[in-house]
Amino acid sequence: MDPHTHTIHRHHHHHGWNRDFAPVHTIAPGETVTFETVDSSGGQLSPSATLADLAALDFSRVNPVTGPVHIDGAEPGDALAVTIEHFAPSGWGWTANIPGFGLLADAFPDPALHLWSYDTALATPAAFGRFARIPLKPFAGTIGLAPAEPGPHSVVPPRRVGGNLDMRDLATGSQLLLPVAVPGALFSVGDTHAAQGDGEVCGTAIESPMTVTLRFDLIKAANLAFPRAVLPTAPTRHIDSAGYDVTTGIGPDLMTGARDAVRGMIDLLTTRHGMPAVDAYMLCSVCGDLRISEIVDQPNWVVSFYMPRSVFL
Amino acid sequence: MDPHTHTIHRHHHHHGWNRDFAPVHTIAPGETVTFETVDSSGGQLSPSATLADLAALDFSRVNPVTGPVHIDGAEPGDALAVTIEHFAPSGWGWTANIPGFGLLADAFPDPALHLWSYDTALATPAAFGRFARIPLKPFAGTIGLAPAEPGPHSVVPPRRVGGNLDMRDLATGSQLLLPVAVPGALFSVGDTHAAQGDGEVCGTAIESPMTVTLRFDLIKAANLAFPRAVLPTAPTRHIDSAGYDVTTGIGPDLMTGARDAVRGMIDLLTTRHGMPAVDAYMLCSVCGDLRISEIVDQPNWVVSFYMPRSVFL
Repeated sequence: MDPHTHTIHRHHHHHGWNRDFAPVHTIAPGETVTFETVDSSGGQLSPSATLADLAALDFSRVNPVTGPVHIDGAEPGDALAVTIEHFAPSGWGWTANIPGFGLLADAFPDPALHLWSYDTALATPAAFGRFARIPLKPFAGTIGLAPAEPGPHSVVPPRRVGGNLDMRDLATGSQLLLPVAVPGALFSVGDTHAAQGDGEVCGTAIESPMTVTLRFDLIKAANLAFPRAVLPTAPTRHIDSAGYDVTTGIGPDLMTGARDAVRGMIDLLTTRHGMPAVDAYMLCSVCGDLRISEIVDQPNWVVSFYMPRSVFL
Repeated sequence: MDPHTHTIHRHHHHHGWNRDFAPVHTIAPGETVTFETVDSSGGQLSPSATLADLAALDFSRVNPVTGPVHIDGAEPGDALAVTIEHFAPSGWGWTANIPGFGLLADAFPDPALHLWSYDTALATPAAFGRFARIPLKPFAGTIGLAPAEPGPHSVVPPRRVGGNLDMRDLATGSQLLLPVAVPGALFSVGDTHAAQGDGEVCGTAIESPMTVTLRFDLIKAANLAFPRAVLPTAPTRHIDSAGYDVTTGIGPDLMTGARDAVRGMIDLLTTRHGMPAVDAYMLCSVCGDLRISEIVDQPNWVVSFYMPRSVFL
């Protein structure tokens, strides 16, 4: 290991965001840090978890993030540039339908759980039962800074300082720019995913603990309104070679359009592949993408859901 | 030309949709038809158009579609499968900011017009002044069927029977499935684009007249709620090799998130490339993509805008 790399161990995690959390480590810009993360259940689910474990989840313990790390010289108005250098994945993960959570929570009231065992070299797609094989592309679902406003803040919603962004293209080699809101920035990371589609429509991805190595740089007075990212290579090359099946939702509300598009894909998958609807829903979440095809032909917008065909080959 | 191919000439166009429009041609399922289209200005803009021509646009003449074609045996509940076989592009096009139209209409009240001259072999990206070069991928922005409801319907909004879908991936080789709502389906097509990003954020793409060849098949009793598509190959391979710059909008409303994400990209492009804001806005429309990164971390969603970096190389 590079002597300039620090490691933040997984017991240094916190729940929610708070500008008054004491930093567990302080670094200078230009330094690299390795973070051990806990999975988004906070260790409540394991490779032998059951539906009963899912039903017993204590939500006050979900989505822990490792940190915070204080970056010397970071001030409000700066941007923290986080370069995603490396993931060391654990090889196990879970995907669940958690009642009350997810884009189609009303249609899927019952809990469901899929456990994954996958190649830590990421060379082999992960089997989703007999139905599909998902190429892996790890990223950190929750990656962000302490908000400006004092007091505790839920970890669930993302904010302009980042957090639970669930941006599936923040993979190795990408760079994320986060608006700094408090002195020292106070960076934390967790909620690592082995794969996810745009939208994370069922509410969970391939939730999987990992070790994450990140490099931190500071851009003074960047004054970003929201996070930005740079993706240096084609982000869907690992999964798009066989094209996509596309379903749509059309109407004056983007949320309704998104729900209609995902419902259309679940109908297609259950009919064509004979899979249970909740499995189709979880499959959509781990590898299908929500896109806005048009947002200007008033009053009706087109939201599309793209399912990569390669996962069925 | 294949003797089984029919040609519908460009003077056989109509404005808006109406189930009572008389078909200009009748075909059997399995047949192929070539359509000449008029550009979305309805021929009001030409390769020598000026801002004065744009200001004088008669909106009752915009977005004509060629057709309708009656497909024998098509009945409500069926799906019309339209295979996109070929485009013969004209080599000229226009992109405009039309006051009152577009995702950021409030921020861009003044008309702007960019005229394009491009390689009809589609082998060379089209120059956007000195700022960028856009790879071309033609498709028909408006492609659809007569709605079930009697009387005239505006061509602007898309509907469950298709229409002004502006789905940029309906390129050569793709297949679109449209829900049939009236006997004979009554198919029409127009609004051809030489390139567009997901969202068509400024309201126009590279608007360009073309000849379009389509094959029609019927899927009986498909009972689709909304259009579907099959894309047999990687849809962004022509433009994604250098990755993307990504901006985001985060909050409880997807429309606001989309607007914030596009605003963020315009800020980035004007700062980095020194281009006027309205040019950045039009560039976003012809090649940048709106995606929904997450739609489940309540109450805040992440909408991302992806700008392909290859257009600047």
